[in-house]
Amino acid sequence: MTRTPTARLMDGAGLARRVNAATASAVEEIRRRTGTAPCLATVLVGEDPASVTYVRMKQTRCAKAGIRSRHIALPASVGTGELVEAVAALSHDPEVHGILLQHPVGPHIDERAAFEAIAPDKDVDGVTTHSFAAMGFGLPGFVSCTPGGILRLLDEYGVDLAGRHAVVVGRSAILGRPAGMLLLGRDATVTYAHSRTADLPALVREADVLVAATGRPGLIRGADIKPGAVVVDAGYGPGNVGDVEFGAAAERASLITPVPGGVGPMTIAVLLAQTVEAARRRLGPA
Amino acid sequence: MTRTPTARLMDGAGLARRVNAATASAVEEIRRRTGTAPCLATVLVGEDPASVTYVRMKQTRCAKAGIRSRHIALPASVGTGELVEAVAALSHDPEVHGILLQHPVGPHIDERAAFEAIAPDKDVDGVTTHSFAAMGFGLPGFVSCTPGGILRLLDEYGVDLAGRHAVVVGRSAILGRPAGMLLLGRDATVTYAHSRTADLPALVREADVLVAATGRPGLIRGADIKPGAVVVDAGYGPGNVGDVEFGAAAERASLITPVPGGVGPMTIAVLLAQTVEAARRRLGPA
Repeated sequence: MTRTPTARLMDGAGLARRVNAATASAVEEIRRRTGTAPCLATVLVGEDPASVTYVRMKQTRCAKAGIRSRHIALPASVGTGELVEAVAALSHDPEVHGILLQHPVGPHIDERAAFEAIAPDKDVDGVTTHSFAAMGFGLPGFVSCTPGGILRLLDEYGVDLAGRHAVVVGRSAILGRPAGMLLLGRDATVTYAHSRTADLPALVREADVLVAATGRPGLIRGADIKPGAVVVDAGYGPGNVGDVEFGAAAERASLITPVPGGVGPMTIAVLLAQTVEAARRRLGPA
Repeated sequence: MTRTPTARLMDGAGLARRVNAATASAVEEIRRRTGTAPCLATVLVGEDPASVTYVRMKQTRCAKAGIRSRHIALPASVGTGELVEAVAALSHDPEVHGILLQHPVGPHIDERAAFEAIAPDKDVDGVTTHSFAAMGFGLPGFVSCTPGGILRLLDEYGVDLAGRHAVVVGRSAILGRPAGMLLLGRDATVTYAHSRTADLPALVREADVLVAATGRPGLIRGADIKPGAVVVDAGYGPGNVGDVEFGAAAERASLITPVPGGVGPMTIAVLLAQTVEAARRRLGPA
């Protein structure tokens, strides 16, 4: 028996376009009022092709929204001290409103030290411990962009999170961990699953909301999706393959993100929106 | 049919005595070497009887271990600004090594602002966002005392956490949330359950390790404990009644904390140990 997909697609690309349009208007308003456009500094270590592409994509999106960008390219051989210094200089530069340090920076560098050199009020990528704690305690601050984008998507599609079981698969510092904190802040019952989890399929079968964030293509079988569940695939495998077996999952879920065109575009949309918010705080509100 | 308790008790009182003895030795060593004893500052707002008792208990334990304490008592009417100032003064005082601000401080005060006035290197109670993020990311720093005490108890009884399902019931900033982060750092699969959780008994039945931290006496029925589970009751109801129905839970669990004599003594033991650690860092290692 053939089953047909029943899930509605969560159109991240479409929502991102609307968020970016609102960001562009806000930039225009700031520029008119203050004579200054928001500025995002991007820092790239080395020449990893994927990282180069990501940074370029972010710069292109910035330009489209009227956000200036300043780029710092450092050789792969840069040391922790030098990188920390470069980031700290941007933190102190009044013309820079937001800072993005492209992850990963290379195994010989203390990435945490480099992230911590980002001033909290310029941490528009939500990677500092300050931002993590703010997400953990529901305090004002910037959110990690991918988790923040996921929350906006869920809100857009009217997903009620309170009391529902959200299972986050993956626990990275910039994706899984903060995503769980944001979901907990919305009163979801939150489970963190990961590579050491004993019986992942059993947990997936319980998830009212599943957030897959491992980067392991096809790790989650569609047959394990709970009927009616909301499936958010933040996977980022090569060739844009998600963590979830899409076809079979779409037969069971009520809502599902496509890959690509789901979470990905939202990540950059949140980055730009937060850059403008940072600029607004620095330059004064309208 | 009557069933007999099969669970082994996790003797927090006994372990706390051993930890406190080690702390007393460390104090003695520091005093001999530097001429200075570690000093914990306690800050109490108002005269809530439970809070007065807790602070007095901590001071008594400090004295027994040779730790000096300095007490700041403020009237219930104190404002946020004044409290923040008092805490900040202790943060800057070189003679103070650790700071404990007794929770709760009263509804008219911004407790978070007061906690944040504690310098991270004096946050021996593990209440700042800095400490939370350190627990979240597995970075060096002080842990929240009750979660830290729970981890020490689990270690003492050889509980292997990797891959096991730990369910934390309760999500307060100083207990549930940091406890979940510490368990995740030990590779447990971690679920945060709370007052909005749809079906708490079903989650409890899945827990290999249950950490109850709600302060709602008897909330967790013994019959829901998974056979062989490890049960940690950090409940603190009046009259020392825990969150877990002890008798029935002890018939099913493999290990269980008594209330009192389980988690409680470990909280103070960790507070003292971290105060000595803070002093050691400030005064230089042996």
